Amino acid sequence: MKETEISELGEFGLIDHLTKDIQPVNKSTIYGIGDDAAVLEYGDRETLVTTDMLMEGVHFDLTYTPLKHLGYKAASVNISDIYAMNGKPCQMTLSVALSKRFSVEDMEDFYDGVMLACRKHGVDLVGGDTTSSLTGLAISITCIGEARKEDIVYRNGAKQNDLICVSGNLGAAYMGLQLLEREKAVFNSTGHDDGEPFSPDFSGKEYLLERQLKPEARGDIIKELAEAGIKPTSMMDISDGLSSELIHICRQSGTGCQVYQNRIPIDYQTAVMAEEMNMDVYTCALNGGEDYELLFTVPLECHERIMTLKDVRLIGHMTKPELGRMLVTDSGQEIELKAQGWQSHLDE
Amino acid sequence: MKETEISELGEFGLIDHLTKDIQPVNKSTIYGIGDDAAVLEYGDRETLVTTDMLMEGVHFDLTYTPLKHLGYKAASVNISDIYAMNGKPCQMTLSVALSKRFSVEDMEDFYDGVMLACRKHGVDLVGGDTTSSLTGLAISITCIGEARKEDIVYRNGAKQNDLICVSGNLGAAYMGLQLLEREKAVFNSTGHDDGEPFSPDFSGKEYLLERQLKPEARGDIIKELAEAGIKPTSMMDISDGLSSELIHICRQSGTGCQVYQNRIPIDYQTAVMAEEMNMDVYTCALNGGEDYELLFTVPLECHERIMTLKDVRLIGHMTKPELGRMLVTDSGQEIELKAQGWQSHLDE
Repeated sequence: MKETEISELGEFGLIDHLTKDIQPVNKSTIYGIGDDAAVLEYGDRETLVTTDMLMEGVHFDLTYTPLKHLGYKAASVNISDIYAMNGKPCQMTLSVALSKRFSVEDMEDFYDGVMLACRKHGVDLVGGDTTSSLTGLAISITCIGEARKEDIVYRNGAKQNDLICVSGNLGAAYMGLQLLEREKAVFNSTGHDDGEPFSPDFSGKEYLLERQLKPEARGDIIKELAEAGIKPTSMMDISDGLSSELIHICRQSGTGCQVYQNRIPIDYQTAVMAEEMNMDVYTCALNGGEDYELLFTVPLECHERIMTLKDVRLIGHMTKPELGRMLVTDSGQEIELKAQGWQSHLDE
Repeated sequence: MKETEISELGEFGLIDHLTKDIQPVNKSTIYGIGDDAAVLEYGDRETLVTTDMLMEGVHFDLTYTPLKHLGYKAASVNISDIYAMNGKPCQMTLSVALSKRFSVEDMEDFYDGVMLACRKHGVDLVGGDTTSSLTGLAISITCIGEARKEDIVYRNGAKQNDLICVSGNLGAAYMGLQLLEREKAVFNSTGHDDGEPFSPDFSGKEYLLERQLKPEARGDIIKELAEAGIKPTSMMDISDGLSSELIHICRQSGTGCQVYQNRIPIDYQTAVMAEEMNMDVYTCALNGGEDYELLFTVPLECHERIMTLKDVRLIGHMTKPELGRMLVTDSGQEIELKAQGWQSHLDE
């Protein structure tokens, strides 16, 4: 199939082409793409805004990331931030800077992924910017959501004795990344002058790849919590790793915490892969990041109701600040939680 | 002065460092930086959202752009888009991706510029993302504003016989860019092994530099229009050049237009510089871009009131669509307006 050079369409042509079928689904979207700014209308609700920037070579590697997945992930990551406030994601703006090596078809794939996530979560794409880049792809997304004032959950509301919960399981996205990086290294070292595409056999490890390449924003958990009548006292999504996020919540809430290593939810495939790679699976779960699961605290009296929720695990409790932020190992030893994560990118 | 490596502070350290003194000024800013999303509250007003992405080497050249000016410009460009809807800018998110060659002091300069523009226009910085880049600096800004429903001005409201107006003067930012590029070429060609900084003598041309490096969002014009009781029928800010923006308004409004070359406002320094560079000053004014002046249409009956406004010029009128989008030259010849602008970046 012949690929279309982006310069054939131009900026406005490309935007028209990519956005012509977009229909707003939210009543609050008065006017979307096509003017200097989108127009949103909120009544008695509060507006939530979050933004993220993703850079090629830092946040994603196109050797093994299909553009459609990248679009889905970029959108999901921002949608996840609105859920992490206990809000409903409603609108999104999408800015993309791309070098000449990208074609219109590439951008279609990318937009397909973005729109798939948007449709799944009822989000309207209402604007953005498309521009050129000298090197690689840069993506910036802003997601806007709404919530009733009394429903919004901040990071700073956790209290002593609150229970600490996480959704899903942790470390899988990180193990997926390790797997992809390992296969990429093999691929590069064996030489591929014949232009053979990167397509290793990942069978049996699909779940890890999916968690890395196509993370899901946990709107289902937000819905479950609401249905169970539980309002968390604090909440975050886990993007940098459980340790880092727990430290944020403790700092902002003025508490300490105690988390039990053997309560941390880990998928079977994650454990197998960690073993295969000779890595400590708990280190991966605590510091791996990119899980986009929800970390939240609830009052002690919610204990029974929390236990009825599907896919939510109780991993510890909040303590007095003097007790520090501690991981209790299987052998009963207390180790201080340390933040790792994004820092490593700059140190590379 | 010793520069601080960004890795010394880390992401969160850097954000804390840069944002610790930020105090919200808008009542609608319920919660700013420090959670998954900012929280805004709007009552009977509508919310406006705009976003822009700026890439090093495409949108700016750090050889001759001080980082403080870059911050000011990046913020102003977005604020300008909210004014172009006849809105009031209120909040901003700022995402920055930077390579290792930038120091904390560099980012302070950049933030200083952003905050200067924010303070000038009463905008709260409420969130963002700071991350690393393999090459160069990438900036993405989203600005959120408010307006009463009945005050919002779209691009599609122009009617036949409406008067076409622009604020300020055009082409100066483009001539400023030409000047900087010329001096940079001289600087590079003469060899500077001694590490001498780029500092040519720009005396007498300060205005052109200022228009390129430190453009002003025309909130003053929005205020003047409101005070004069004039609501434009359509409005845009001029980022890609007068021709391109007129075509947008005509297309979206379903009209043609007639613009008189000799009515196009051009500053004395712009004319001198165009002469010096052997360029047609009207081509610069029509296609140069980055003026961030306001282009708007008003009903014919506003004629007298428009004439009383400082710094607003009447340049033509809207016509039937069949008459096309025309520039009437000094000799009375009609030439069709053509869009140029961003396209050229991709073609380079």
